[in-house]
Amino acid sequence: MLTRAQNERIEVVLVSPRNPLNIGAAARAMANFGLRRLAVVAPYEAHWREARSAVGAPELLQDAKETRSLTEAVRDCTLVVGTGSLARRKPEQPVVPLPELAPLLRQEIARGGRVALVFGSEKRGLTRQDLSHCHLLAEIPTDPRQPSMNLGQAVAVCLYEIASRLSESRMPDTGRSAATEAQTQRGRRTRVDPGDAAGPASTRDLELLAGLVEETMLAANYSPPAMRTANRHDVHLLLRRLALTRQDARRILGLFRRILWRLKP
Amino acid sequence: MLTRAQNERIEVVLVSPRNPLNIGAAARAMANFGLRRLAVVAPYEAHWREARSAVGAPELLQDAKETRSLTEAVRDCTLVVGTGSLARRKPEQPVVPLPELAPLLRQEIARGGRVALVFGSEKRGLTRQDLSHCHLLAEIPTDPRQPSMNLGQAVAVCLYEIASRLSESRMPDTGRSAATEAQTQRGRRTRVDPGDAAGPASTRDLELLAGLVEETMLAANYSPPAMRTANRHDVHLLLRRLALTRQDARRILGLFRRILWRLKP
Repeated sequence: MLTRAQNERIEVVLVSPRNPLNIGAAARAMANFGLRRLAVVAPYEAHWREARSAVGAPELLQDAKETRSLTEAVRDCTLVVGTGSLARRKPEQPVVPLPELAPLLRQEIARGGRVALVFGSEKRGLTRQDLSHCHLLAEIPTDPRQPSMNLGQAVAVCLYEIASRLSESRMPDTGRSAATEAQTQRGRRTRVDPGDAAGPASTRDLELLAGLVEETMLAANYSPPAMRTANRHDVHLLLRRLALTRQDARRILGLFRRILWRLKP
Repeated sequence: MLTRAQNERIEVVLVSPRNPLNIGAAARAMANFGLRRLAVVAPYEAHWREARSAVGAPELLQDAKETRSLTEAVRDCTLVVGTGSLARRKPEQPVVPLPELAPLLRQEIARGGRVALVFGSEKRGLTRQDLSHCHLLAEIPTDPRQPSMNLGQAVAVCLYEIASRLSESRMPDTGRSAATEAQTQRGRRTRVDPGDAAGPASTRDLELLAGLVEETMLAANYSPPAMRTANRHDVHLLLRRLALTRQDARRILGLFRRILWRLKP
């Protein structure tokens, strides 16, 4: 069983789900493993309605947040974790094998952060654009001959892993490099109250900052307009890799506002 | 990734599955986690045909074994593991939390045994009769408010757990009593070649023995005929709890044959 804080601070995000049965299955897996915060990004409307009105649909589907973009869905989250089987892809984020994810989540929640677990659509999984919102990628270790999982089953597997490891009393010694590294990196900040300036910057903070950095790049003629999308992507990745505190973010924002004020005619 | 031996010696058994989508989902999860031996017990024929002929159905569905009874499906298995969320039930077998199952399977396979993972029907799960074929019950730790999992998701969660733990290089230290106990109990036998007399007795051996014990009970007027079903059930449970070797089974068989020969007029 998860603690109340863990339950409150873990959000499941489905990006553009198509199949109402899969949406229902994801919600059911959440109920099975004691989670209740669901966000659905840009669902196909008819299917979303169908999933919510299905007989026996878990209550949490009624309370689900519906957003137009992934940015909006993870706005309040401080650790955004993409999920998938990465057999055919080389991600730009640190990759953590799913069995090693729980300690990172436990730490983030203990320091007052909020976690999002992001699942891509049935057809394409998470796009590069989706992934640019993620701090980490949790890889489900599947067979290379059949790596791609059904959405409902992928959600069940991830939530099982997290719920069963988070409710273990002791901290497992994972002893592998990816998790240890990511943990060390994110562990630099000390434990704080939520709301504290030393707490982790939220996605909202980072988005504000990214927007300002982008504007600055343009204003400073940093690179040709054709590079704008690529630059935006790189800034996204960079800001998430830095694991900024709220105070860091505020300071950098102040700096860029100042720069921008000077750059603009 | 599982070793070839692990892949060959783990069988997934679905008892009376109803929904073709669930059968397909179970098969897909097997492909995702590198397993290929599937047995289906007394499926509803139309649905079974539909599942096998579905577009994109994994190949292993074509090779699946179809049997009339669970006994027949697990005939060659030496460790039969029932699965489920046991919130509303008090099972008669030792219960192992799913996260602690892998070491037991590893051990059984290393000594030349064969493992069956048994999943009940969508509606009722495993019946008491089904469970009497199981040496152990693996409990999926679900929320007591919503304990019952979808079949396809339950298969995915169990196979994920087993595949990811079996392919870990080192033996995890689980440090809990149920697993340790079961391990100690089953660990009494030493490591052997498959086919060796010191190897674990198969379900076939145990069934032969159970039949002979039952016949003996009747011949000896051990208890009234009305108790026959209850006795058969208890004998089933007892024989599985004993963790007999092939040689043990053979000796006891010999003994009961002798007794029976003396009892019969």
